[in-house]
Amino acid sequence: MDNRPIGMFDSGVGGLTVYKEVKKAFPNEQIIYVGDTKRFPYGSKTKENIINASKKCVDFLISENVKEIIIACGTATSRALDTLKATYDIPITGIIEPTVSYIKEKNYKNIGVIATRGTIESNSWKINLEKKISDVNVYNQECPLLAPMAEEGWTKNEVAKLTIKEYLKNFENKKLDALILGCTHYPLFEAIIKQYLPDVEIINTGKVIANKMEQSKEKTKENITKEDKIFITDTQCNFEAVAKKILEKDIKIEGIDLG
Amino acid sequence: MDNRPIGMFDSGVGGLTVYKEVKKAFPNEQIIYVGDTKRFPYGSKTKENIINASKKCVDFLISENVKEIIIACGTATSRALDTLKATYDIPITGIIEPTVSYIKEKNYKNIGVIATRGTIESNSWKINLEKKISDVNVYNQECPLLAPMAEEGWTKNEVAKLTIKEYLKNFENKKLDALILGCTHYPLFEAIIKQYLPDVEIINTGKVIANKMEQSKEKTKENITKEDKIFITDTQCNFEAVAKKILEKDIKIEGIDLG
Repeated sequence: MDNRPIGMFDSGVGGLTVYKEVKKAFPNEQIIYVGDTKRFPYGSKTKENIINASKKCVDFLISENVKEIIIACGTATSRALDTLKATYDIPITGIIEPTVSYIKEKNYKNIGVIATRGTIESNSWKINLEKKISDVNVYNQECPLLAPMAEEGWTKNEVAKLTIKEYLKNFENKKLDALILGCTHYPLFEAIIKQYLPDVEIINTGKVIANKMEQSKEKTKENITKEDKIFITDTQCNFEAVAKKILEKDIKIEGIDLG
Repeated sequence: MDNRPIGMFDSGVGGLTVYKEVKKAFPNEQIIYVGDTKRFPYGSKTKENIINASKKCVDFLISENVKEIIIACGTATSRALDTLKATYDIPITGIIEPTVSYIKEKNYKNIGVIATRGTIESNSWKINLEKKISDVNVYNQECPLLAPMAEEGWTKNEVAKLTIKEYLKNFENKKLDALILGCTHYPLFEAIIKQYLPDVEIINTGKVIANKMEQSKEKTKENITKEDKIFITDTQCNFEAVAKKILEKDIKIEGIDLG
Protein backbone atom coordinates (compact mmCIF):
# COMPACT_ATOMS: atom_id res chain seq x y z
CA MET A 1 0.00 0.00 0.00
CA ASP A 2 1.07 3.55 -0.73
CA ASN A 3 0.68 5.49 2.50
CA ARG A 4 1.22 8.91 0.99
CA PRO A 5 -1.74 11.31 1.18
CA ILE A 6 -4.30 12.12 -1.52
CA GLY A 7 -4.17 15.77 -2.65
CA MET A 8 -7.21 17.87 -3.52
CA PHE A 9 -7.78 21.48 -4.45
CA ASP A 10 -10.61 23.90 -5.17
CA SER A 11 -11.00 27.67 -5.42
CA GLY A 12 -12.55 27.68 -1.96
CA VAL A 13 -14.75 25.73 0.37
CA GLY A 14 -16.89 23.97 -2.26
CA GLY A 15 -14.39 21.19 -2.91
CA LEU A 16 -15.01 19.97 0.62
CA THR A 17 -18.19 18.38 -0.77
CA VAL A 18 -15.81 16.10 -2.72
CA TYR A 19 -13.47 15.70 0.25
CA LYS A 20 -16.42 14.60 2.40
CA GLU A 21 -17.45 11.81 0.01
CA VAL A 22 -13.91 10.55 -0.63
CA LYS A 23 -13.22 10.56 3.12
CA LYS A 24 -16.41 8.59 3.74
CA ALA A 25 -15.32 5.96 1.19
CA PHE A 26 -11.65 5.92 2.26
CA PRO A 27 -11.57 6.77 5.97
CA ASN A 28 -8.05 5.44 6.40
CA GLU A 29 -6.49 7.65 3.74
CA GLN A 30 -4.90 10.96 4.67
CA ILE A 31 -6.10 13.89 2.54
CA ILE A 32 -4.36 17.23 1.98
CA TYR A 33 -6.80 19.90 0.76
CA VAL A 34 -6.10 23.37 -0.62
CA GLY A 35 -8.83 26.02 -0.88
CA ASP A 36 -7.39 28.81 -3.06
CA THR A 37 -9.46 31.53 -1.41
CA LYS A 38 -6.99 34.21 -2.47
CA ARG A 39 -8.02 33.66 -6.09
CA PHE A 40 -11.69 32.76 -5.48
CA PRO A 41 -13.86 32.75 -7.58
CA TYR A 42 -12.25 30.76 -10.41
CA GLY A 43 -15.54 30.83 -12.34
CA SER A 44 -15.15 34.40 -13.55
CA LYS A 45 -11.46 34.17 -14.50
CA THR A 46 -9.78 33.50 -17.85
CA LYS A 47 -8.47 30.06 -18.76
CA GLU A 48 -4.89 31.33 -18.47
CA ASN A 49 -5.46 32.62 -14.93
CA ILE A 50 -7.15 29.35 -13.89
CA ILE A 51 -4.23 27.34 -15.25
CA ASN A 52 -1.73 29.50 -13.36
CA ALA A 53 -3.74 29.26 -10.15
CA SER A 54 -4.18 25.49 -10.52
CA LYS A 55 -0.43 25.02 -11.03
CA LYS A 56 0.25 26.80 -7.75
CA CYS A 57 -2.08 24.36 -5.99
CA VAL A 58 -0.61 21.31 -7.73
CA ASP A 59 3.00 22.39 -7.01
CA PHE A 60 2.14 22.83 -3.35
CA LEU A 61 0.38 19.45 -3.11
CA ILE A 62 3.35 17.74 -4.77
CA SER A 63 5.64 19.42 -2.22
CA GLU A 64 3.40 17.83 0.44
CA ASN A 65 4.26 14.42 -1.08
CA VAL A 66 0.76 13.45 -2.26
CA LYS A 67 0.44 10.30 -4.41
CA GLU A 68 -2.40 11.59 -6.61
CA ILE A 69 -4.47 14.74 -7.08
CA ILE A 70 -8.22 15.18 -7.35
CA ILE A 71 -9.32 18.49 -8.81
CA ALA A 72 -12.29 19.09 -6.53
CA CYS A 73 -13.34 22.08 -8.65
CA GLY A 74 -15.51 22.23 -11.76
CA THR A 75 -13.91 25.32 -13.27
CA ALA A 76 -10.33 24.07 -12.77
CA THR A 77 -11.35 20.70 -14.28
CA SER A 78 -12.85 22.29 -17.38
CA ARG A 79 -10.13 24.93 -17.84
CA ALA A 80 -6.92 23.36 -16.60
CA LEU A 81 -7.10 19.53 -16.46
CA ASP A 82 -5.63 18.91 -19.93
CA THR A 83 -2.73 21.30 -19.32
CA LEU A 84 -2.06 19.89 -15.85
CA LYS A 85 -2.04 16.32 -17.18
CA ALA A 86 0.41 17.35 -19.91
CA THR A 87 2.63 19.17 -17.39
CA TYR A 88 2.83 16.76 -14.44
CA ASP A 89 3.56 13.04 -14.10
CA ILE A 90 1.42 12.58 -10.99
CA PRO A 91 -2.08 11.07 -11.59
CA ILE A 92 -4.67 13.88 -11.75
CA THR A 93 -8.44 13.33 -11.83
CA GLY A 94 -11.09 15.95 -12.53
CA ILE A 95 -14.82 15.84 -11.90
CA ILE A 96 -15.94 15.50 -15.53
CA GLU A 97 -14.66 12.12 -16.72
CA PRO A 98 -16.03 9.97 -13.86
CA THR A 99 -19.38 11.77 -14.13
CA VAL A 100 -19.67 11.27 -17.88
CA SER A 101 -18.93 7.58 -17.38
CA TYR A 102 -21.64 7.37 -14.68
CA ILE A 103 -24.21 9.05 -16.96
CA LYS A 104 -23.35 6.63 -19.77
CA GLU A 105 -23.90 3.66 -17.45
CA LYS A 106 -27.28 5.06 -16.44
CA ASN A 107 -28.19 5.56 -20.10
CA TYR A 108 -29.39 9.10 -19.45
CA LYS A 109 -30.01 11.21 -22.56
CA ASN A 110 -31.36 14.59 -21.43
CA ILE A 111 -28.77 16.23 -19.26
CA GLY A 112 -28.79 19.65 -17.63
CA VAL A 113 -25.51 21.22 -16.49
CA ILE A 114 -25.28 24.07 -14.02
CA ALA A 115 -21.84 25.57 -13.49
CA THR A 116 -19.77 28.76 -13.34
CA ARG A 117 -19.44 31.07 -16.33
CA GLY A 118 -15.92 29.78 -17.04
CA THR A 119 -17.05 26.16 -17.11
CA ILE A 120 -20.07 26.86 -19.30
CA GLU A 121 -18.03 28.95 -21.72
CA SER A 122 -15.48 26.14 -22.01
CA ASN A 123 -18.36 23.86 -23.06
CA SER A 124 -16.41 20.96 -21.52
CA TRP A 125 -19.41 19.03 -20.20
CA LYS A 126 -21.22 19.07 -23.55
CA ILE A 127 -18.08 18.15 -25.48
CA ASN A 128 -17.22 15.26 -23.15
CA LEU A 129 -20.78 13.95 -22.92
CA GLU A 130 -21.24 14.01 -26.70
CA LYS A 131 -17.91 12.22 -27.17
CA LYS A 132 -19.05 9.26 -25.06
CA ILE A 133 -22.84 9.13 -25.44
CA SER A 134 -24.74 9.11 -28.70
CA ASP A 135 -27.96 11.12 -28.98
CA VAL A 136 -27.32 12.95 -25.75
CA ASN A 137 -28.95 16.36 -25.31
CA VAL A 138 -27.02 18.74 -23.07
CA TYR A 139 -28.53 21.95 -21.70
CA ASN A 140 -26.07 24.40 -20.15
CA GLN A 141 -26.87 27.07 -17.58
CA GLU A 142 -24.28 29.36 -16.01
CA CYS A 143 -24.93 30.29 -12.36
CA PRO A 144 -22.25 32.88 -11.50
CA LEU A 145 -23.67 33.83 -8.11
CA LEU A 146 -24.05 30.37 -6.56
CA ALA A 147 -20.39 29.81 -5.64
CA PRO A 148 -20.11 33.26 -3.96
CA MET A 149 -23.35 32.52 -2.07
CA ALA A 150 -22.02 29.13 -0.96
CA GLU A 151 -18.78 30.73 0.26
CA GLU A 152 -20.92 33.08 2.39
CA GLY A 153 -23.02 30.23 3.77
CA TRP A 154 -26.25 31.51 2.18
CA THR A 155 -27.38 28.05 1.09
CA LYS A 156 -30.81 27.62 2.60
CA ASN A 157 -32.33 31.11 2.89
CA GLU A 158 -34.91 32.85 0.71
CA VAL A 159 -32.24 34.58 -1.39
CA ALA A 160 -30.71 31.21 -2.28
CA LYS A 161 -34.16 29.83 -3.18
CA LEU A 162 -35.00 32.75 -5.43
CA THR A 163 -31.59 32.71 -7.11
CA ILE A 164 -31.85 29.00 -7.86
CA LYS A 165 -35.41 29.38 -9.14
CA GLU A 166 -34.15 32.05 -11.53
CA TYR A 167 -31.25 29.91 -12.77
CA LEU A 168 -33.31 26.73 -13.18
CA LYS A 169 -36.21 28.23 -15.11
CA ASN A 170 -34.53 27.48 -18.47
CA PHE A 171 -34.81 23.75 -17.70
CA GLU A 172 -38.60 23.79 -17.70
CA ASN A 173 -40.01 21.46 -20.34
CA LYS A 174 -36.59 19.95 -21.06
CA LYS A 175 -37.60 16.59 -19.51
CA LEU A 176 -34.20 16.21 -17.89
CA ASP A 177 -33.04 12.78 -16.75
CA ALA A 178 -30.25 14.26 -14.71
CA LEU A 179 -28.84 17.60 -13.62
CA ILE A 180 -25.07 17.76 -13.15
CA LEU A 181 -23.88 20.02 -10.33
CA GLY A 182 -20.92 21.19 -12.43
CA CYS A 183 -19.38 23.20 -9.62
CA THR A 184 -18.42 21.51 -6.36
CA HIS A 185 -20.01 24.32 -4.34
CA TYR A 186 -23.47 23.41 -5.61
CA PRO A 187 -24.19 20.30 -3.47
CA LEU A 188 -24.70 22.85 -0.69
CA PHE A 189 -27.89 23.82 -2.54
CA GLU A 190 -29.00 20.27 -3.32
CA ALA A 191 -32.10 20.37 -1.09
CA ILE A 192 -33.42 23.52 -2.81
CA ILE A 193 -32.56 22.29 -6.31
CA LYS A 194 -34.42 19.04 -5.60
CA GLN A 195 -37.54 21.05 -4.71
CA TYR A 196 -37.58 22.65 -8.15
CA LEU A 197 -36.65 19.47 -10.06
CA PRO A 198 -38.22 16.64 -8.02
CA ASP A 199 -38.14 14.04 -10.83
CA VAL A 200 -34.57 14.67 -11.96
CA GLU A 201 -31.49 12.90 -10.60
CA ILE A 202 -29.26 15.58 -9.10
CA ILE A 203 -25.66 14.50 -9.62
CA ASN A 204 -23.18 15.36 -6.89
CA THR A 205 -19.83 14.81 -8.60
CA GLY A 206 -18.09 14.15 -5.27
CA LYS A 207 -20.28 11.11 -4.71
CA VAL A 208 -19.58 9.89 -8.25
CA ILE A 209 -15.81 10.29 -7.81
CA ALA A 210 -15.82 8.48 -4.44
CA ASN A 211 -17.88 5.69 -5.95
CA LYS A 212 -15.57 5.29 -8.97
CA MET A 213 -12.57 5.26 -6.64
CA GLU A 214 -14.19 2.51 -4.57
CA GLN A 215 -14.60 0.42 -7.72
CA SER A 216 -11.00 0.82 -8.86
CA LYS A 217 -8.93 1.27 -5.76
CA GLU A 218 -8.05 -1.12 -3.00
CA LYS A 219 -8.95 0.21 0.41
CA THR A 220 -6.22 0.39 2.96
CA LYS A 221 -7.05 -1.44 6.13
CA GLU A 222 -4.25 0.23 7.97
CA ASN A 223 -5.52 3.04 10.12
CA ILE A 224 -3.40 6.01 9.14
CA THR A 225 -2.93 8.12 12.22
CA LYS A 226 -1.89 11.19 10.27
CA GLU A 227 -4.59 13.83 10.37
CA ASP A 228 -5.92 15.46 7.21
CA LYS A 229 -4.64 18.96 6.49
CA ILE A 230 -6.78 21.78 5.14
CA PHE A 231 -4.99 24.85 3.81
CA ILE A 232 -6.42 28.15 2.52
CA THR A 233 -4.55 30.87 0.65
CA ASP A 234 -6.42 33.85 2.14
CA THR A 235 -7.87 33.80 5.63
CA GLN A 236 -10.28 36.79 5.44
CA CYS A 237 -13.21 34.61 4.45
CA ASN A 238 -16.05 32.55 5.78
CA PHE A 239 -14.30 29.24 5.05
CA GLU A 240 -14.31 27.85 8.57
CA ALA A 241 -18.03 28.39 9.20
CA VAL A 242 -19.07 26.91 5.84
CA ALA A 243 -16.60 24.02 6.19
CA LYS A 244 -18.22 23.17 9.52
CA LYS A 245 -21.64 23.11 7.83
CA ILE A 246 -20.41 20.79 5.07
CA LEU A 247 -18.42 18.40 7.26
CA GLU A 248 -20.64 18.67 10.33
CA LYS A 249 -17.62 18.93 12.62
CA ASP A 250 -14.94 21.42 13.63
CA ILE A 251 -11.80 21.40 11.51
CA LYS A 252 -8.36 22.92 11.82
CA ILE A 253 -7.44 25.24 8.97
CA GLU A 254 -4.00 26.61 8.12
CA GLY A 255 -3.25 29.72 6.05
CA ILE A 256 -0.55 29.38 3.38
CA ASP A 257 1.03 31.82 0.94
CA LEU A 258 1.11 30.40 -2.60
CA GLY A 259 2.01 33.79 -4.16
CA MET B 1 -2.82 73.58 -15.69
CA ASP B 2 -1.50 70.06 -15.30
CA ASN B 3 -2.71 68.10 -18.30
CA ARG B 4 -1.73 64.66 -17.02
CA PRO B 5 -4.60 62.24 -16.39
CA ILE B 6 -6.31 61.41 -13.10
CA GLY B 7 -5.82 57.77 -12.04
CA MET B 8 -8.48 55.62 -10.39
CA PHE B 9 -8.73 52.01 -9.35
CA ASP B 10 -11.19 49.54 -7.88
CA SER B 11 -11.44 45.76 -7.54
CA GLY B 12 -13.89 45.72 -10.43
CA VAL B 13 -16.66 47.64 -12.09
CA GLY B 14 -18.03 49.37 -8.97
CA GLY B 15 -15.51 52.19 -9.01
CA LEU B 16 -17.08 53.38 -12.25
CA THR B 17 -19.78 54.93 -10.02
CA VAL B 18 -16.99 57.25 -8.80
CA TYR B 19 -15.58 57.67 -12.30
CA LYS B 20 -19.01 58.74 -13.55
CA GLU B 21 -19.38 61.52 -10.96
CA VAL B 22 -15.83 62.82 -11.31
CA LYS B 23 -16.20 62.83 -15.09
CA LYS B 24 -19.47 64.77 -14.81
CA ALA B 25 -17.75 67.39 -12.67
CA PHE B 26 -14.52 67.49 -14.71
CA PRO B 27 -15.44 66.62 -18.29
CA ASN B 28 -12.18 68.00 -19.66
CA GLU B 29 -9.92 65.82 -17.54
CA GLN B 30 -8.59 62.54 -18.88
CA ILE B 31 -9.13 59.60 -16.51
CA ILE B 32 -7.24 56.28 -16.47
CA TYR B 33 -9.23 53.58 -14.63
CA VAL B 34 -8.11 50.12 -13.50
CA GLY B 35 -10.63 47.43 -12.51
CA ASP B 36 -8.61 44.69 -10.82
CA THR B 37 -11.01 41.93 -11.84
CA LYS B 38 -8.30 39.27 -11.50
CA ARG B 39 -8.29 39.81 -7.75
CA PHE B 40 -12.01 40.66 -7.32
CA PRO B 41 -13.52 40.64 -4.72
CA TYR B 42 -11.23 42.67 -2.42
CA GLY B 43 -13.85 42.55 0.35
CA SER B 44 -13.09 38.98 1.38
CA LYS B 45 -9.29 39.26 1.28
CA THR B 46 -6.78 39.98 4.06
CA LYS B 47 -5.31 43.46 4.59
CA GLU B 48 -1.94 42.22 3.31
CA ASN B 49 -3.43 40.92 0.06
CA ILE B 50 -5.40 44.16 -0.46
CA ILE B 51 -2.24 46.23 0.05
CA ASN B 52 -0.32 44.09 -2.46
CA ALA B 53 -3.15 44.29 -5.00
CA SER B 54 -3.53 48.06 -4.51
CA LYS B 55 0.21 48.60 -5.04
CA LYS B 56 0.01 46.80 -8.39
CA CYS B 57 -2.76 49.21 -9.45
CA VAL B 58 -0.92 52.29 -8.17
CA ASP B 59 2.37 51.27 -9.84
CA PHE B 60 0.55 50.80 -13.13
CA LEU B 61 -1.26 54.15 -12.86
CA ILE B 62 2.03 55.92 -12.07
CA SER B 63 3.55 54.26 -15.16
CA GLU B 64 0.64 55.80 -17.09
CA ASN B 65 1.84 59.22 -15.87
CA VAL B 66 -1.21 60.16 -13.78
CA LYS B 67 -0.99 63.30 -11.62
CA GLU B 68 -3.10 61.98 -8.72
CA ILE B 69 -4.90 58.80 -7.71
CA ILE B 70 -8.43 58.31 -6.42
CA ILE B 71 -9.04 54.96 -4.72
CA ALA B 72 -12.52 54.32 -6.12
CA CYS B 73 -12.90 51.32 -3.78
CA GLY B 74 -14.14 51.15 -0.20
CA THR B 75 -12.13 48.09 0.81
CA ALA B 76 -8.85 49.39 -0.65
CA THR B 77 -9.46 52.74 1.08
CA SER B 78 -10.04 51.15 4.47
CA ARG B 79 -7.27 48.55 4.16
CA ALA B 80 -4.53 50.16 2.09
CA LEU B 81 -4.80 53.99 2.01
CA ASP B 82 -2.45 54.64 4.96
CA THR B 83 0.22 52.30 3.57
CA LEU B 84 -0.11 53.71 0.06
CA LYS B 85 0.23 57.29 1.33
CA ALA B 86 3.34 56.29 3.29
CA THR B 87 4.80 54.50 0.25
CA TYR B 88 4.16 56.90 -2.63
CA ASP B 89 4.72 60.63 -3.15
CA ILE B 90 1.78 61.05 -5.56
CA PRO B 91 -1.42 62.50 -4.02
CA ILE B 92 -3.83 59.67 -3.17
CA THR B 93 -7.45 60.15 -2.06
CA GLY B 94 -9.78 57.50 -0.67
CA ILE B 95 -13.54 57.54 -0.25
CA ILE B 96 -13.61 57.87 3.56
CA GLU B 97 -12.10 61.28 4.37
CA PRO B 98 -14.25 63.39 1.99
CA THR B 99 -17.37 61.55 3.16
CA VAL B 100 -16.62 62.07 6.86
CA SER B 101 -16.09 65.76 6.18
CA TYR B 102 -19.45 65.92 4.33
CA ILE B 103 -21.27 64.21 7.23
CA LYS B 104 -19.70 66.64 9.71
CA GLU B 105 -20.91 69.61 7.63
CA LYS B 106 -24.41 68.16 7.59
CA ASN B 107 -24.28 67.65 11.37
CA TYR B 108 -25.57 64.09 11.05
CA LYS B 109 -25.27 62.00 14.20
CA ASN B 110 -26.82 58.57 13.48
CA ILE B 111 -24.91 56.96 10.67
CA GLY B 112 -25.31 53.54 9.10
CA VAL B 113 -22.46 52.03 7.10
CA ILE B 114 -22.87 49.16 4.65
CA ALA B 115 -19.70 47.72 3.19
CA THR B 116 -17.70 44.56 2.48
CA ARG B 117 -16.53 42.26 5.25
CA GLY B 118 -12.96 43.60 4.98
CA THR B 119 -14.10 47.21 5.35
CA ILE B 120 -16.39 46.48 8.29
CA GLU B 121 -13.72 44.44 10.07
CA SER B 122 -11.23 47.28 9.64
CA ASN B 123 -13.75 49.52 11.44
CA SER B 124 -12.34 52.44 9.44
CA TRP B 125 -15.61 54.30 8.99
CA LYS B 126 -16.43 54.26 12.70
CA ILE B 127 -12.89 55.24 13.71
CA ASN B 128 -12.75 58.13 11.24
CA LEU B 129 -16.27 59.38 11.99
CA GLU B 130 -15.65 59.33 15.76
CA LYS B 131 -12.35 61.16 15.31
CA LYS B 132 -14.06 64.11 13.60
CA ILE B 133 -17.61 64.18 14.99
CA SER B 134 -18.53 64.19 18.68
CA ASP B 135 -21.53 62.13 19.82
CA VAL B 136 -21.77 60.29 16.53
CA ASN B 137 -23.41 56.84 16.53
CA VAL B 138 -22.14 54.49 13.85
CA TYR B 139 -23.92 51.25 12.95
CA ASN B 140 -21.94 48.85 10.78
CA GLN B 141 -23.37 46.16 8.50
CA GLU B 142 -21.29 43.90 6.26
CA CYS B 143 -22.89 42.94 2.94
CA PRO B 144 -20.51 40.39 1.37
CA LEU B 145 -22.80 39.40 -1.51
CA LEU B 146 -23.63 42.85 -2.88
CA ALA B 147 -20.38 43.47 -4.76
CA PRO B 148 -20.52 40.03 -6.47
CA MET B 149 -24.18 40.72 -7.39
CA ALA B 150 -23.25 44.12 -8.82
CA GLU B 151 -20.45 42.55 -10.89
CA GLU B 152 -23.06 40.18 -12.34
CA GLY B 153 -25.50 43.00 -13.08
CA TRP B 154 -28.15 41.68 -10.68
CA THR B 155 -28.98 45.10 -9.31
CA LYS B 156 -32.70 45.49 -9.82
CA ASN B 157 -34.18 41.99 -9.68
CA GLU B 158 -36.04 40.20 -6.88
CA VAL B 159 -32.88 38.51 -5.61
CA ALA B 160 -31.21 41.91 -5.15
CA LYS B 161 -34.30 43.24 -3.34
CA LEU B 162 -34.46 40.30 -0.95
CA THR B 163 -30.72 40.41 -0.27
CA ILE B 164 -30.82 44.11 0.52
CA LYS B 165 -33.88 43.69 2.74
CA GLU B 166 -31.95 41.03 4.70
CA TYR B 167 -28.87 43.22 5.09
CA LEU B 168 -30.78 46.37 6.06
CA LYS B 169 -33.00 44.85 8.72
CA ASN B 170 -30.49 45.63 11.48
CA PHE B 171 -31.02 49.36 10.81
CA GLU B 172 -34.67 49.26 11.85
CA ASN B 173 -35.34 51.60 14.80
CA LYS B 174 -31.87 53.13 14.53
CA LYS B 175 -33.31 56.48 13.36
CA LEU B 176 -30.50 56.91 10.85
CA ASP B 177 -29.76 60.37 9.44
CA ALA B 178 -27.61 58.89 6.70
CA LEU B 179 -26.50 55.57 5.26
CA ILE B 180 -23.01 55.48 3.78
CA LEU B 181 -22.60 53.24 0.73
CA GLY B 182 -19.17 52.12 1.93
CA CYS B 183 -18.42 50.12 -1.20
CA THR B 184 -18.43 51.80 -4.60
CA HIS B 185 -20.47 48.96 -6.10
CA TYR B 186 -23.46 49.84 -3.93
CA PRO B 187 -24.77 52.92 -5.80
CA LEU B 188 -25.99 50.35 -8.33
CA PHE B 189 -28.55 49.33 -5.67
CA GLU B 190 -29.45 52.88 -4.63
CA ALA B 191 -33.05 52.72 -5.88
CA ILE B 192 -33.79 49.57 -3.88
CA ILE B 193 -32.02 50.81 -0.74
CA LYS B 194 -34.04 54.04 -0.91
CA GLN B 195 -37.26 51.99 -0.91
CA TYR B 196 -36.34 50.38 2.40
CA LEU B 197 -34.96 53.58 3.99
CA PRO B 198 -37.07 56.38 2.47
CA ASP B 199 -36.25 58.98 5.14
CA VAL B 200 -32.52 58.42 5.25
CA GLU B 201 -29.94 60.24 3.10
CA ILE B 202 -28.18 57.58 1.04
CA ILE B 203 -24.59 58.73 0.55
CA ASN B 204 -22.94 57.90 -2.77
CA THR B 205 -19.26 58.51 -2.04
CA GLY B 206 -18.51 59.17 -5.72
CA LYS B 207 -20.82 62.19 -5.63
CA VAL B 208 -19.20 63.43 -2.42
CA ILE B 209 -15.69 63.08 -3.89
CA ALA B 210 -16.65 64.87 -7.11
CA ASN B 211 -18.26 67.66 -5.09
CA LYS B 212 -15.22 68.09 -2.83
CA MET B 213 -12.97 68.16 -5.89
CA GLU B 214 -15.14 70.88 -7.43
CA GLN B 215 -14.71 72.98 -4.29
CA SER B 216 -10.92 72.61 -4.17
CA LYS B 217 -9.77 72.19 -7.72
CA GLU B 218 -9.71 74.59 -10.61
CA LYS B 219 -11.49 73.23 -13.65
CA THR B 220 -9.55 73.08 -16.84
CA LYS B 221 -11.25 74.92 -19.67
CA GLU B 222 -9.02 73.29 -22.20
CA ASN B 223 -10.77 70.44 -23.93
CA ILE B 224 -8.43 67.50 -23.57
CA THR B 225 -8.81 65.38 -26.65
CA LYS B 226 -7.23 62.33 -25.07
CA GLU B 227 -9.80 59.65 -24.44
CA ASP B 228 -10.21 58.03 -21.06
CA LYS B 229 -8.73 54.55 -20.72
CA ILE B 230 -10.36 51.69 -18.86
CA PHE B 231 -8.24 48.65 -18.06
CA ILE B 232 -9.20 45.33 -16.45
CA THR B 233 -6.85 42.64 -15.15
CA ASP B 234 -9.01 39.63 -16.09
CA THR B 235 -11.36 39.65 -19.04
CA GLN B 236 -13.60 36.62 -18.24
CA CYS B 237 -16.16 38.77 -16.45
CA ASN B 238 -19.31 40.77 -16.93
CA PHE B 239 -17.46 44.11 -16.73
CA GLU B 240 -18.46 45.50 -20.10
CA ALA B 241 -22.20 44.91 -19.68
CA VAL B 242 -22.31 46.36 -16.18
CA ALA B 243 -20.07 49.29 -17.16
CA LYS B 244 -22.56 50.11 -19.91
CA LYS B 245 -25.38 50.12 -17.35
CA ILE B 246 -23.48 52.47 -15.04
CA LEU B 247 -22.21 54.87 -17.67
CA GLU B 248 -25.17 54.59 -20.03
CA LYS B 249 -22.88 54.35 -23.04
CA ASP B 250 -20.54 51.91 -24.75
CA ILE B 251 -16.96 51.99 -23.59
CA LYS B 252 -13.71 50.52 -24.84
CA ILE B 253 -11.99 48.20 -22.36
CA GLU B 254 -8.43 46.89 -22.50
CA GLY B 255 -7.10 43.81 -20.71
CA ILE B 256 -3.77 44.20 -18.87
CA ASP B 257 -1.54 41.79 -16.97
CA LEU B 258 -0.53 43.23 -13.58
CA GLY B 259 0.82 39.88 -12.33
